Amino acid sequence: MNTLLLVLDLTGTFVFALSGAGAGVKHRLDLFGVLVLSFVAGNFGGITRDLMIGAVPPAAISDWRYLGVSLLAGLITFYWFSILDRLHSPVLLFDAAGLALFAVSGTQKALSFGLTPAMAALLGMLTGIGGGMVRDILLAEIPTVLRADLYAVAALAGAAIVVIGNLLDVPSIAATLVGAALCFGLRVMAIQYRWHLPVARARKR
Amino acid sequence: MNTLLLVLDLTGTFVFALSGAGAGVKHRLDLFGVLVLSFVAGNFGGITRDLMIGAVPPAAISDWRYLGVSLLAGLITFYWFSILDRLHSPVLLFDAAGLALFAVSGTQKALSFGLTPAMAALLGMLTGIGGGMVRDILLAEIPTVLRADLYAVAALAGAAIVVIGNLLDVPSIAATLVGAALCFGLRVMAIQYRWHLPVARARKR
Amino acid sequence: MNTLLLVLDLTGTFVFALSGAGAGVKHRLDLFGVLVLSFVAGNFGGITRDLMIGAVPPAAISDWRYLGVSLLAGLITFYWFSILDRLHSPVLLFDAAGLALFAVSGTQKALSFGLTPAMAALLGMLTGIGGGMVRDILLAEIPTVLRADLYAVAALAGAAIVVIGNLLDVPSIAATLVGAALCFGLRVMAIQYRWHLPVARARKR
Repeated sequence: MNTLLLVLDLTGTFVFALSGAGAGVKHRLDLFGVLVLSFVAGNFGGITRDLMIGAVPPAAISDWRYLGVSLLAGLITFYWFSILDRLHSPVLLFDAAGLALFAVSGTQKALSFGLTPAMAALLGMLTGIGGGMVRDILLAEIPTVLRADLYAVAALAGAAIVVIGNLLDVPSIAATLVGAALCFGLRVMAIQYRWHLPVARARKR
Repeated sequence: MNTLLLVLDLTGTFVFALSGAGAGVKHRLDLFGVLVLSFVAGNFGGITRDLMIGAVPPAAISDWRYLGVSLLAGLITFYWFSILDRLHSPVLLFDAAGLALFAVSGTQKALSFGLTPAMAALLGMLTGIGGGMVRDILLAEIPTVLRADLYAVAALAGAAIVVIGNLLDVPSIAATLVGAALCFGLRVMAIQYRWHLPVARARKR
Repeated sequence: MNTLLLVLDLTGTFVFALSGAGAGVKHRLDLFGVLVLSFVAGNFGGITRDLMIGAVPPAAISDWRYLGVSLLAGLITFYWFSILDRLHSPVLLFDAAGLALFAVSGTQKALSFGLTPAMAALLGMLTGIGGGMVRDILLAEIPTVLRADLYAVAALAGAAIVVIGNLLDVPSIAATLVGAALCFGLRVMAIQYRWHLPVARARKR
């Protein structure tokens, strides 16, 4: 279980760091600005989760591998951005993968610290959306999560699968993989087909 | 005492969540964006306070009622925004009520965790201004607290009443209600009559 | 050692508070807005560091001297801004001094809480860049750290000196002063001579 959690967490950190670094390159930041943005985007969600469940110092600070994969992602993006950029909207894709991985790993970690199922799913969702939120805030933009199609819904769906799996005593690796796949799938389909939730009717002004 | 704290905290969460959801609807966010914004605006101040006094996991994560009132406020705002909007500047009014409730509940909770009176008042003020601050940051605006008339002053005045009441052994419910009323009154009067503090003379540039 | 840490921390708080207040005056905030910004800019880095190493309540909340120096810096800036402003780009200079002081004090405090050398340097860097980051976020700007010449690099260099000094058993006061001087020197030279790191080549769009 702990190995699974670590692999999910590190992979999530890597892909969120890619998305942060990609956004940094697009905003013409210099090398270190890109590295700072990749560290913050990759680790903010996990650090927040660890602070909230009382796991201090947070894994991202006490375990060098989180720093390592963040810097690796930042350097790769910085030097080979033109390759990454040929993929269609790479920031969005990596962001979706990070969202999925953190949503399930956050839920698992919260469950193992004894939170109730509903709260574990909520914390998983927050872990997932935290990294992308702070990446966008640092670039002075309204976070994707608040505007994008099915963003937090996808994270919550993935987290819910993990919680339901836990309640039904399904092996956690199965529930985790299904949850991550569901979250990633929902988010990518929402981007592709422009699925979106209703917007409130505000008065003209 | 604990019941009082809980009622204040939940009411503060509800009205800040209303203000967050209202700001979200005005920015044309979709349903889930509005719900995320109402949760964050309603709970960020309390979560920060709990992290700082070492009360982990924060009440907003471990107690489902905080999530419940946040979602309720978000849904009400989303579906009946046009009614809320007929009130004059509803975001500002709910924001003022949330400020008052969190300023006094934050101060009470900090006192009960053994902080000194001056520091408890400071933490109460920070609890009060945190939710509105992060709401505005998420929408890429300069927070109201930094620009608005008598915003942090009002929070500090309310917190000070609670601290003084505590030092004088006044029943905490009385001090709390007076403090909240003073903070709300100051803020609303400041909006109404455009009271404001001096601005420094900067050189023309 | 503890006295040294306290002096560094308070001085760092003071100069970051000056930079926060200066930025607030330039954005035409009122008196209390300026004071809030000076408190947040001066203390956010240290509060984050304390939360991460589990030192709760953070020094900035439990020790009134942090509040005192923040308010003092805010009042000085508010009433004598025109004098400060005659210095060339005072916000940048105070920001550089705060960066240097927090980078070394953050590293020292992390070492004394038992973090590994590499992680202590990382946390020192984060402590240093945190205050300026949140100051710029609150003013809805992209943080200096992400754009500026050699900003995080300078903080990391200062933190590295402290860690190396610790590994070599150099008296901590010597390592600390050399680290702070190196960080400040690097940052000021980078501003003066417009040193900068490479920017990735992004496709024209």
